[in-house]
Amino acid sequence: MSGTVSINSLHRVAVAGGTHGNEMSGVTLVKCWLRDSTDLVRDTFTAVPILANPKATEKCVRYYERDLNRCFTWDILRSSESEDEPYEVKRAREINRMFGPRGSTNAFDMILDLHNSTSNMGVCLIISETQKHLEMHACHYIQTHLPEFDPRIYLYTEPGSALYDLCSVGKAGIGFELGPQPHGVVRSDILQNMKALVKVTLDFINLLNQGIEFPGFEVDVYQRVGHIEFPLSPDGEVSAVVHPSLQDQDFSLLLPGDPAFLSLDNKIIPYTGERPVYPVFINEAAYYEKNIAFIVVDKLHVSVPTLSSKRGNKA
Amino acid sequence: MSGTVSINSLHRVAVAGGTHGNEMSGVTLVKCWLRDSTDLVRDTFTAVPILANPKATEKCVRYYERDLNRCFTWDILRSSESEDEPYEVKRAREINRMFGPRGSTNAFDMILDLHNSTSNMGVCLIISETQKHLEMHACHYIQTHLPEFDPRIYLYTEPGSALYDLCSVGKAGIGFELGPQPHGVVRSDILQNMKALVKVTLDFINLLNQGIEFPGFEVDVYQRVGHIEFPLSPDGEVSAVVHPSLQDQDFSLLLPGDPAFLSLDNKIIPYTGERPVYPVFINEAAYYEKNIAFIVVDKLHVSVPTLSSKRGNKA
Repeated sequence: MSGTVSINSLHRVAVAGGTHGNEMSGVTLVKCWLRDSTDLVRDTFTAVPILANPKATEKCVRYYERDLNRCFTWDILRSSESEDEPYEVKRAREINRMFGPRGSTNAFDMILDLHNSTSNMGVCLIISETQKHLEMHACHYIQTHLPEFDPRIYLYTEPGSALYDLCSVGKAGIGFELGPQPHGVVRSDILQNMKALVKVTLDFINLLNQGIEFPGFEVDVYQRVGHIEFPLSPDGEVSAVVHPSLQDQDFSLLLPGDPAFLSLDNKIIPYTGERPVYPVFINEAAYYEKNIAFIVVDKLHVSVPTLSSKRGNKA
Repeated sequence: MSGTVSINSLHRVAVAGGTHGNEMSGVTLVKCWLRDSTDLVRDTFTAVPILANPKATEKCVRYYERDLNRCFTWDILRSSESEDEPYEVKRAREINRMFGPRGSTNAFDMILDLHNSTSNMGVCLIISETQKHLEMHACHYIQTHLPEFDPRIYLYTEPGSALYDLCSVGKAGIGFELGPQPHGVVRSDILQNMKALVKVTLDFINLLNQGIEFPGFEVDVYQRVGHIEFPLSPDGEVSAVVHPSLQDQDFSLLLPGDPAFLSLDNKIIPYTGERPVYPVFINEAAYYEKNIAFIVVDKLHVSVPTLSSKRGNKA
C-alpha cells in the first residue's frame, strides 16, 4: 500500500484498567495513576486514567453481573436505562457518555484498555481491523521500540462481526493483553511490561502530534477465525483437558492431527480442523464458563501506508 | 527416634476436592471419581471421593460465603445450626458428621484434601504436626516413590495454634498443595501430578494394611512461623508488589536485607526480618483479601520411628 494517510492530532486519550476486575496489572496501574498521573503527561496531551468496572474490581472478579467488555454493542448503547438491568449495562452507557459517544466527533481520540490472561499470550496488542491505520502504526511503533516483548497484533473480531468492547467507544483503541498471569494476582514482571507498553504508546501519540511522519510498513497480524470447545461427556461435564503439548503454546502453529486435548481417562484427542491454525488464549480461565478451550487465528501479512498528523508541524 | 509405632489398619479413607471451589485439579479428579471410582479401589479398602464445597465449585470461586477450610474449628463443629449462618459453616458440620466426628472413634482413618496454589509451590504435602507418624510415613513414601516431584512437607499451623482445616475431621489427613496453577484453570501437567500423588498414597495405605513395616527415617519439614503483609499506602491501598527476584522462589532461603517488594514508584523494599526464613505461598491470589504477600517457614529436621499396622500380617 502506498501513499500517506493524514489524520487529526490526538488530544483526548484514555487509559482504562479494571474492565475485568480481576486482571490486576491494569487495576494496579490505573489506581496508581488516579493518585498521581505524572506518567500520563506528555507535551501535547495528558491521558486520562479510568477504572472501568469499579464494582468488579472491588470484588476482584471479572464482572459483577455481565462481562463489561461485551456490553459496548449498539443495542445496549442506544437503549434507554431501566432499573433492573445489569450493572455493567448501565456502566457501558456511562463510559460511552464519558469517552464517546461512539461514532461521534466528541469521542475520545484513543482508548488504551489494559488486560491480563492466564494464557501464555506474552504481549498481545488487540485491535479491531487492519484498516485502522493509526492503531496499526501505534502497534508497529510498540513492536519497534519494545522488540524484547515480541508483541503480536491480534484482530479480535471475526470478519463481518460487530464491535462490542470498551475500546470501540473511542475513535481508535488498542487492548493490551498480557500473560500468563493468574487472575487476582499482580506479577511485578508483567506490571513493568504493561507500564512500558503504555509509556511507549503515549510517546508515539506525542510524536505524531508533534508532526513526526511514520513511514509505511508491512507486518504480520493474527485474525480471529473461530474457537475450539472442550469435549463434553454425555452429562455435560468437561471430559478432557488441554493437552500438555498444546498448553502454553499460544501463537505456535497447530496442525490437523496434533494433540489438542487429553481425556480424563488419558486418551489423546487430536485437533480435527481442516487446515493449520494458530491457537491463542489457550486454557484462559475466563473462557471456561463459555466452554472455550482456545481461540483459533489465521496469520495475515498486511501493508500499512505512511501516517502523518494534519495539524502537526514537521519536525 | 527409635522403636516401632504400631497403628490400626486404615479402612475408611476419603479424598476431598473442591474444598476451595476454584482449585481445579481436585475439582476435576473428584468429579471424575464420583462417576467412576476405579482409581480409588485397593485390596484392603476403597477410598470415598467427596466434592467438599459444591456451591463454591459450581460458581468456580474459592468459597460461597466463608472459607470452608477455616471452618473446622471446635467452636463451629460444636455449635448448633442456625438459619442465617454462612453456607460453609453448615457444610463444615455436615462434613464432620460424614467423615468425623472429629476426635471420635467413628472418624475416618485418613482424609486426603486436594488443593492448588497460584504460587510456585511445586508439590507440597500439608500436615498438622510431625508427631503424627502415619502422615509422616505417608509423606516419606510419596517422597521416595515420586522423587521427581521433590515433594516438601509443610506444617500449616503455627506452634500452639488450633486446627481449622477439613483434614482435621479425620484421625489423620494430608493436604496436597500443587502449583503454580491459576485458579479456575486445569493444567494437564498438574492434574497428572495430583493423580499420581493420590495413587501413591493409597498404595502406601494398602501396603500398611497388608502388614508391610515402614522403617524409621529422618526428614526435613517446613514449619509455618508467620506471614508478611503487603506494604500499604496511607489510604489503605497496596503500595508495592512482590519483588521479581522473590516471585516464584517458594522454599528458597530469604535473608534479611534481600528484596521482598518493589514499590509502585520502583523502590526496592527489603525483607526486614531478624533471621533467614523460607517464604512459601508467595503471591497467592487467595491471600490478597487478607493482605498476605507470603508465608514464612522454618526448616526443621526430624526423626520418625518405624511404623507398622497392628492388624496386618507380616508380608
